[in-house]
Amino acid sequence: MPTGPALLTDRYELTMVAAALADGTADRDCVFEVFARRLPHGRRYGVVAGTGRLIEALPEFCFGDDELETLRAQGLTDPRLLDWLAGFRFSGDVDGYAEGEPFFPGSPVLTVRAPFAEGVLLETLVLSVLNHDSAIASAAARMVGAACERPCIEMGSRRTHEQAAVAAARAASLVGFVASSNLEAGRRYGVPTTGTSAHAFTLLHDDETDAFRAQIEALGVGTTLLVDTYDVVQGIRNAVAVAGPGLGAIRLDSGDLPTLATHARELLDSLGATGTRIIVTSDLDEFAISGLMAAPVDGYGVGTSLVTGSGAPTAGMVYKLVERDGVPVAKRSEGKNSVGGRKTAVRRHDADGTATAEVVTSGRVEPRDGDRSLLVELVRGGRVVDPSSPADALTAATAHHRRVREALPPEAWALSRGEPALETVTE
Amino acid sequence: MPTGPALLTDRYELTMVAAALADGTADRDCVFEVFARRLPHGRRYGVVAGTGRLIEALPEFCFGDDELETLRAQGLTDPRLLDWLAGFRFSGDVDGYAEGEPFFPGSPVLTVRAPFAEGVLLETLVLSVLNHDSAIASAAARMVGAACERPCIEMGSRRTHEQAAVAAARAASLVGFVASSNLEAGRRYGVPTTGTSAHAFTLLHDDETDAFRAQIEALGVGTTLLVDTYDVVQGIRNAVAVAGPGLGAIRLDSGDLPTLATHARELLDSLGATGTRIIVTSDLDEFAISGLMAAPVDGYGVGTSLVTGSGAPTAGMVYKLVERDGVPVAKRSEGKNSVGGRKTAVRRHDADGTATAEVVTSGRVEPRDGDRSLLVELVRGGRVVDPSSPADALTAATAHHRRVREALPPEAWALSRGEPALETVTE
Repeated sequence: MPTGPALLTDRYELTMVAAALADGTADRDCVFEVFARRLPHGRRYGVVAGTGRLIEALPEFCFGDDELETLRAQGLTDPRLLDWLAGFRFSGDVDGYAEGEPFFPGSPVLTVRAPFAEGVLLETLVLSVLNHDSAIASAAARMVGAACERPCIEMGSRRTHEQAAVAAARAASLVGFVASSNLEAGRRYGVPTTGTSAHAFTLLHDDETDAFRAQIEALGVGTTLLVDTYDVVQGIRNAVAVAGPGLGAIRLDSGDLPTLATHARELLDSLGATGTRIIVTSDLDEFAISGLMAAPVDGYGVGTSLVTGSGAPTAGMVYKLVERDGVPVAKRSEGKNSVGGRKTAVRRHDADGTATAEVVTSGRVEPRDGDRSLLVELVRGGRVVDPSSPADALTAATAHHRRVREALPPEAWALSRGEPALETVTE
Repeated sequence: MPTGPALLTDRYELTMVAAALADGTADRDCVFEVFARRLPHGRRYGVVAGTGRLIEALPEFCFGDDELETLRAQGLTDPRLLDWLAGFRFSGDVDGYAEGEPFFPGSPVLTVRAPFAEGVLLETLVLSVLNHDSAIASAAARMVGAACERPCIEMGSRRTHEQAAVAAARAASLVGFVASSNLEAGRRYGVPTTGTSAHAFTLLHDDETDAFRAQIEALGVGTTLLVDTYDVVQGIRNAVAVAGPGLGAIRLDSGDLPTLATHARELLDSLGATGTRIIVTSDLDEFAISGLMAAPVDGYGVGTSLVTGSGAPTAGMVYKLVERDGVPVAKRSEGKNSVGGRKTAVRRHDADGTATAEVVTSGRVEPRDGDRSLLVELVRGGRVVDPSSPADALTAATAHHRRVREALPPEAWALSRGEPALETVTE
């Protein structure tokens, strides 16, 4: 059974390869570019994510006997195609924005230079990974921004495809979520995992106090008790009665959270549990998080809205042929026009280090003080440039994101709809 | 490296198991129920999907050495927990709506009866699979409905996580999409795959005519030529000039599709290509499809809106403990109230065979003429009741969906926001 990514591909990539092999165009030197035409819903910036997952998958993108048999069974029987696929290993170059880098409309977030047949074959996987992961990271970054310094925890696995959940936990971690509920994200990427209990655990027991006692027995008094199964006030009293004033945290998962958190804080303080934190969950998104800024909340658990990109579940990135044998090419019919030619990009900064523009050009950028080049070498001649482990790559991307987001102008943090925080300037 | 689904799980399922093992409640006889509290965006019905994938995954849900080592590394070191997990095989019963069945608010789409520890352990995977797949199937069914008898093709792989794409292609097929672009969906589930070419293929060539010639050489005149890379009118003329009037189809991927399709039809007819079909793509959803009903369109390719659930990327299903040792239990605090007790469900029909109500009860339904019982046995004592192959299970679900959707009342086909087409009646 095939386990590599090669069949996670649109059939038309293969029919194009077959036709190009037949007419001698398959080897033409091509440049494909990945970019988003716009940011969704008037967002101010996006965050590139998925590059690391792509780099992990690339060496495994090949067609063994099982893959070839699958293609034959689906009617792709052209011997020239199958022979070529059997020998396929990506031999080209890939450049891209560093993972965690903010992007704007037209930012050339990934550039693939390769013979046509090799470059076109990667299209589907490249877009699946970048569109998904960047959508999650872009939404998650707004949540982290809205939460200011309060910690956010990812707990959306159950609201998305079981494998997408792992990638979502990774993308959230990349932009500053402190932990995830997803055990596999812990294994693959070293994302810290957390978890305590659900309402079912309270309902399992004859009364709430028994459930709290069992949880504390298993996880210690530093755990988080879920206090809203029956009556929140009584739940908090029971929690402190069982755990003592050293209880780590309570979790509120329903009701009007600003009011409830305020009352919970007063009650906890009155019971002497002044150090017990209040964690809130329940359909939070960046707007709800922002609305809780004045409430005595110590952490946010975010599920549905995170893993679904908070209204923008895909990043809208496209993969376009922009150059062929050194000649710029572009679709020219009505709508969706693209600019031909391979682009480079720098982020321009003022004297204070604040970003002022995204400069994208198919020529040469006249370098100025404060320009930061945005494209890094990812693959050279088919070989991954930085063979870090998945966990190390995520750590590096997380650090890069934290560093570069600080240079964005204040407009970037607005949750309201508006223009991108940086204008994309074509020079 | 673990390849089974056991780690695609929220950590708290395991901390609950550990605590329940410690205090002796792990073996309590429990019933968990999956249901959606509401349908998104005023939709009229949802479609259950994912059940087949869940049944595939269940026998592989176990904790081998790699999984246990992962848990230890993440700090889950309780020997009692690890011992229990090492021996874990699901031993309970699962009943559920047949895959492809419409559902309504409160429909008990899946029921798991098992000792607490076994039932709670499945929660995350059950919800991930059902929430994702049902979201896609529910959106896709509206598209198929809007397209009436015209064929819909799934081509959204690039807009969602690479593995979610396979599940999305499956879910779309289940409700009547005739084909998918996704090769892996063809392999795993026997979904018919299709694909021809992209704009890149035209841009690769020195001119459009060369590209069309190469494609026809490779795929025959029955293929679909993409005619909007440069100028649509000239593109159609080039297409017919190269392929002759027997050209299978043209594809339009941009512009104002109703107008463009009408002009394209006139032009094709004037060129004698009266049998050449017109396939449209370009950000279609159920509303755009409906808006093309009067246009001379022969098929729809749907991408982004399909794989993102057309505005509702998750089905909002929850997994709730409803019974413990025969006693109904339910969360009782503010908001999100649930009804305790194990439910059964029938769909009530009038004398003409049109569905009139979704009857959900924790008691016994007094059977009437035209009632159809909705729960089928899926797993008994841990064993899958129907061990069909994944492809056969999909075929059966597709047939079931086609059969039962015909019984829905006409209100079900409204695309506008409104009430569910069937009221959920609690008896």
